[in-house]
Amino acid sequence: MTYQLHYWPGIQGRGEFVRLALEAAGASYVDVARGEPGDGQGLPAMAFYLEDQSVARPPFACPFLVDGKLVVAQAAAILLHLGPKLGLVGGSEADRLWTHQLQLTIADVVAEAHDSHHPVGTGLYYEDQKAEARRRAGEFRRERIPKFFAWFEAVLERNPKNAGRKLPHLVGARLSYADLSLFQLVDGLLYAFPRGTKRALKKAPRLAALHAGVGAHKRLAAYLASERRIPFNEEGIFRRYPELDG
Amino acid sequence: MTYQLHYWPGIQGRGEFVRLALEAAGASYVDVARGEPGDGQGLPAMAFYLEDQSVARPPFACPFLVDGKLVVAQAAAILLHLGPKLGLVGGSEADRLWTHQLQLTIADVVAEAHDSHHPVGTGLYYEDQKAEARRRAGEFRRERIPKFFAWFEAVLERNPKNAGRKLPHLVGARLSYADLSLFQLVDGLLYAFPRGTKRALKKAPRLAALHAGVGAHKRLAAYLASERRIPFNEEGIFRRYPELDG
Repeated sequence: MTYQLHYWPGIQGRGEFVRLALEAAGASYVDVARGEPGDGQGLPAMAFYLEDQSVARPPFACPFLVDGKLVVAQAAAILLHLGPKLGLVGGSEADRLWTHQLQLTIADVVAEAHDSHHPVGTGLYYEDQKAEARRRAGEFRRERIPKFFAWFEAVLERNPKNAGRKLPHLVGARLSYADLSLFQLVDGLLYAFPRGTKRALKKAPRLAALHAGVGAHKRLAAYLASERRIPFNEEGIFRRYPELDG
Repeated sequence: MTYQLHYWPGIQGRGEFVRLALEAAGASYVDVARGEPGDGQGLPAMAFYLEDQSVARPPFACPFLVDGKLVVAQAAAILLHLGPKLGLVGGSEADRLWTHQLQLTIADVVAEAHDSHHPVGTGLYYEDQKAEARRRAGEFRRERIPKFFAWFEAVLERNPKNAGRKLPHLVGARLSYADLSLFQLVDGLLYAFPRGTKRALKKAPRLAALHAGVGAHKRLAAYLASERRIPFNEEGIFRRYPELDG
């Protein structure tokens, strides 16, 4: 079974949360929009699902996953679907719901990270909202990142399976898609706000250990070192504008 | 089985999406933070789950639902959990995932509606970001509301079960929690941006019919007319600031 992942070819963006799960699990997938139109891939293949009226359940936006007849959009919903298939979530209903809840909170931070450089609107250039971005990014760095990190740290601390372990997990004793997404969140924040994020990580040692440990996961490390990992850049969610890092 | 819903007592906010599901299903629930501390309710009962270190899987924020031993936060995750129990989602895995995907997109619009009056940060007063709010709300009204409405309209149009029906549903032939949340979204937008939203609804007749029809649902109409329905106000997500309605 080869999954089709559809996402913008030039950025990590929200597609990366799905990509990390597929890569960590060693799943077979095609990154459709990065392929060649001559092979039935590329942007036209993605546009079909977004625009063609024959699609009964159309995605509002990418990323979306095509899994046989199923088309699933919204990164968190894709991971909800993939988690059990890829062995990246616990078996109990309670664990699955908790993992999903963690994922939705990660998605909230991701949205705030995006808005830190585009507070006035996505339709405008960063250059047209630099002053507003400075205000918003200041609050994000000073208030929001520490608050979210403190919560993730508490979650890691209260997971009884983490006692005595070097590499903590969010849920139970095994790697979940939420661990992978949390790795990506911290990685992105370290790129965008290196000073503010390093400062916040000092107060969240378990979260720092999770970031380091997940990044060293064998298949994930190979992916991160490969050309399949698109470098962070100033078109994505996490952007390095030094003036926003205080 | 009595569910405990925990949410700020003075606003509809994100708690309302859960409340509508509980009310439409006629479920037994306690709106904990609106109760009396003398009865073990009120804000202290809510604060316990958010702050006490004995809570193994703490919510990051309200709303959250306590269902026996389970504590679930994030409105969309709560509805994912409640949907099957309340009969507010289809039976197939594909229907459940699609309903959840719709819910997550509704949540995205809700976040944008909030940010339209608080683009620079939630920690500041509206009065300290009025100019920025005007810019953001303008884009929200002119670009985003019509774009989201067009998508929901397409979803309603492509649901084959809606052919020939006055009251369309998002998924299949029955009321789902996503229908209820979409009702609430349109209701809130009509409150906050009456001119812009009415204009957008003219181009989305099925969505307008869903809003009217869901609001007339027997149990829901009784709830909306009751004191349990907190009126919209300028502390919640949907705020009527006439200067933002263009």
